Amino acid sequence: MVRGTLLVVAAAAGAASALWPLPTGLSTGTKALTLSSHFDIDTSAISNPPQDLLDAITRTKGFLKTDQLQILTVDRGASFAPQLKTAKSLSSLVLSFDKGHSGKVTSISEEALDKIENRVEGYSLTVPADGSAATIKANSTLGLFRGLTTFGQLWYDLNNVTYTVESPIQITDGPVYAYRGFMLDTARNFFPVSDILRTLDAMSWVKMTTFHWHMVDSQSFPIEVPEFPELSAKGSYGASFIYSVDDVQNIVSYAAARGIDVLPEVDTPGHTTSIAEAFPEHIACAFATPWASFANEPPAGQLRFANADTANFTASLISSISSRFPVNMPCYTADEQTQADLNATGKTFNQALDTFMQGNHAVLESSGKTPVVWEEMVLEFNLTLSNETIVMVWISADDAAAVTSQGFRIVRADSVAYYLDCGGGGWVGNDPSDNSWCDPFKTWQFTYTFDPTANLTDAQAALVIGGEQLLWTEQSHASNLDSIVWPRASASAEVYWSGFGGNDSAALPRLHDLAFRMTQRGVGAIALQPLWCALRPGVCDIDA
Amino acid sequence: MVRGTLLVVAAAAGAASALWPLPTGLSTGTKALTLSSHFDIDTSAISNPPQDLLDAITRTKGFLKTDQLQILTVDRGASFAPQLKTAKSLSSLVLSFDKGHSGKVTSISEEALDKIENRVEGYSLTVPADGSAATIKANSTLGLFRGLTTFGQLWYDLNNVTYTVESPIQITDGPVYAYRGFMLDTARNFFPVSDILRTLDAMSWVKMTTFHWHMVDSQSFPIEVPEFPELSAKGSYGASFIYSVDDVQNIVSYAAARGIDVLPEVDTPGHTTSIAEAFPEHIACAFATPWASFANEPPAGQLRFANADTANFTASLISSISSRFPVNMPCYTADEQTQADLNATGKTFNQALDTFMQGNHAVLESSGKTPVVWEEMVLEFNLTLSNETIVMVWISADDAAAVTSQGFRIVRADSVAYYLDCGGGGWVGNDPSDNSWCDPFKTWQFTYTFDPTANLTDAQAALVIGGEQLLWTEQSHASNLDSIVWPRASASAEVYWSGFGGNDSAALPRLHDLAFRMTQRGVGAIALQPLWCALRPGVCDIDA
Repeated sequence: MVRGTLLVVAAAAGAASALWPLPTGLSTGTKALTLSSHFDIDTSAISNPPQDLLDAITRTKGFLKTDQLQILTVDRGASFAPQLKTAKSLSSLVLSFDKGHSGKVTSISEEALDKIENRVEGYSLTVPADGSAATIKANSTLGLFRGLTTFGQLWYDLNNVTYTVESPIQITDGPVYAYRGFMLDTARNFFPVSDILRTLDAMSWVKMTTFHWHMVDSQSFPIEVPEFPELSAKGSYGASFIYSVDDVQNIVSYAAARGIDVLPEVDTPGHTTSIAEAFPEHIACAFATPWASFANEPPAGQLRFANADTANFTASLISSISSRFPVNMPCYTADEQTQADLNATGKTFNQALDTFMQGNHAVLESSGKTPVVWEEMVLEFNLTLSNETIVMVWISADDAAAVTSQGFRIVRADSVAYYLDCGGGGWVGNDPSDNSWCDPFKTWQFTYTFDPTANLTDAQAALVIGGEQLLWTEQSHASNLDSIVWPRASASAEVYWSGFGGNDSAALPRLHDLAFRMTQRGVGAIALQPLWCALRPGVCDIDA
Repeated sequence: MVRGTLLVVAAAAGAASALWPLPTGLSTGTKALTLSSHFDIDTSAISNPPQDLLDAITRTKGFLKTDQLQILTVDRGASFAPQLKTAKSLSSLVLSFDKGHSGKVTSISEEALDKIENRVEGYSLTVPADGSAATIKANSTLGLFRGLTTFGQLWYDLNNVTYTVESPIQITDGPVYAYRGFMLDTARNFFPVSDILRTLDAMSWVKMTTFHWHMVDSQSFPIEVPEFPELSAKGSYGASFIYSVDDVQNIVSYAAARGIDVLPEVDTPGHTTSIAEAFPEHIACAFATPWASFANEPPAGQLRFANADTANFTASLISSISSRFPVNMPCYTADEQTQADLNATGKTFNQALDTFMQGNHAVLESSGKTPVVWEEMVLEFNLTLSNETIVMVWISADDAAAVTSQGFRIVRADSVAYYLDCGGGGWVGNDPSDNSWCDPFKTWQFTYTFDPTANLTDAQAALVIGGEQLLWTEQSHASNLDSIVWPRASASAEVYWSGFGGNDSAALPRLHDLAFRMTQRGVGAIALQPLWCALRPGVCDIDA
């Protein structure tokens, strides 16, 4: 992996104003080029192109017709009209594998679900100015897909003419970090499948790799688990608030076809109260009051991991999913069953948790999955974890140093920069002066200028595999999903694709473009500034 | 006007859990009652019922069928099934005028547009438990409409049975304050007409009286003014970002039919840069840089009010609209034309502003309108204003005391409690550490417990005619209009209808209900808590 400041170099060229994330290698010209009404995408150089690639091509061609994005200048492109009249016209984009391709054609989906260290996402894209065929070359189908995504962002509309004024375009691109994610909590409040699919589309437009699905929590258990149907039957918010097995499969395959791996998370042993609706015997402190003595938010309740039956139950439950382990100690101290189990086995609390975790992770690794844990498992409970384990760091930059010092790969999920729910005020009842615990609101600018390797040694920095922005949903549901996530979550997507080092002033015009393109595609990205500012790059800067 | 704590008394009854704003007089029973499939609303007691009342009845009957709101209990009402089987069925709601009615039938629209001190909104509503006809009586058509709105909030759904379990219901209701508003800024970013109409619907559901339309500002001039077509042609964001004369008429009549008066605002003499696109001769410091030296936000520019031509132009422009007058002094000091005009007339700055204002207000009053100004006109510039003038107080509670001390009626528009955009982070470019100037986010709880007459004398308090929540739209457009406004803007709607004194813990269950009902009706109100909490009133309180 190469990390650096390529972003600044490219941004200085002032080109390709609608690309997000910015390609790591980019050169553009100043010639106008229009898209022919006969434009097509040619896969004849690929034997048996995978269906998900063909589907991606269909979507791309659709967007080229429907985006109808006006350029963000005061005249919205009207002054280009004379140029466009005499411009060459592009009628073909040719996809092909590059010299490094293995010869074995795999689908986007297969490649997206491969282990993160094996994924190949680079591509090169050329768009000549003379109307001759544009090309995308890559050593993987995933790379071709990333190139298609970039191609789809090159174009503006003027009176139904689709054009660029920056040809010829030459892009050699690939991500600096492998993990670029977004987390959605579907337990505090439920999101219909259609909302998740739309979110996956938007994620793919900014080339994200991972949908971290925080599926269940203390408030509800919306996932149908065939071996334990009672979990969702009793633990969900109701029959219309359950992701069926088919729904989950649909989400996973929809994501994969868009280059996105789903990281499913079942919170254990904390954040598990909803399991008590069906299996009260496994939950300590279930619904105990006052809740604030036993949990960070209501309702209280955690798995009795020291109990052998509970451990077996949990291992079965998470046989294909990863786990999160924040633990509230007073809950276990107060739980007689846990204390009895610890006494019976002669284990300490941490030893018992260690045994519990190892059992769960063995299940995961035997099925070819990579375990992911939150940082407390390393820093607070000092558990025995395999080197394979990926650790999510959310509390502080100091903790990023501490976890990487132990040799673990980390994903930056810093609450100070990446928690999308912050700034929405307090939500616990009857406390009118309560603000977000993680105030202030995380602006895209703050996220974008948050350096994920600040104060890390080179060796520590090399263990940062990426980052993600996160939406905890105490105050969100379908009504504000788009508006609270987009375009903000694009900020980290660019940092981890293009590399840290861009400045927010240079990025802002492109982010405006992205937000409006998302809106054209049905994702309700919000306005970042008055349109007056969006049409005049730099003029609304603080010192302009 | 009677102000007090009726709200607390009614809330203590624990009844009518879905009503918002809470009626000032309410008693409920414990009997189940269902809505007959033949249910109808009877206006035969009203000779020539106005068309807008008939339309409101049609909408109400529609909502009774489509709301399909499940009660917010853990079983979502399933346990009521046996009661509902044997419940009486309501087949008629009879509307009639009460004894105090003048005999002259006027429309909702006519009454909504009457001077605020003349409006009559009270009504009484009875829903017997025995299936005999429900009744709404009022001394005005507007009162009948308010009663209809309340009636539409009484019902839940269980398996397609529409029911209440709180009959008999007896309501005697009327607002404590006459002005209950919401302000939308359509100048920083544009909102399609359909978004404004949807907002008016939501406002009517919580019985608001005033849509304060901040139509234009420095960034854009989206209003078509027939006498000055260049204003929007050159000053708007483009041809598709203009409210035509027909659009405005549509908005005004749509609002009036829902009991809402439109208070149109044209910012003068500050916040007028967009006028310079068409009439540069009237604007001082147009687009001057650095903008921060001349304006609170870009672009700089203010009307040359000391110039006679500009004053005439402005008087023509605002012949039917009210004005706002924040002024940036350095702009005028730097403007040679303004200094020359002041020298030529021998007037001071404040004297010239006074003349300008009086001219504009004379235009308004001669057309039967009530001038509304922001507090700076009284406290900073000490202008000569008629007693008719209503003053918007936005800076501080101290200013509320100061303005009412001068005998003016005021509307509370306090930024500390009512600005809906606060907490969204800074939006000026290239300043990653910038937060909202008015952080933190104004939670509904904070708004709800903000006392509009705190520290006022009785005489001062008597001049508070109401309040409004406000959306400035630097970071909002159609994508997040609903989510940033609803249900939060309902908080002040209840305070000013029911009177201050409710506590947020008692209000929360009803507000959850309102938010879900809004969602059912197509307004994207956000979640205030995890649904787990919404289904368990009080359990997620801080001390539960």
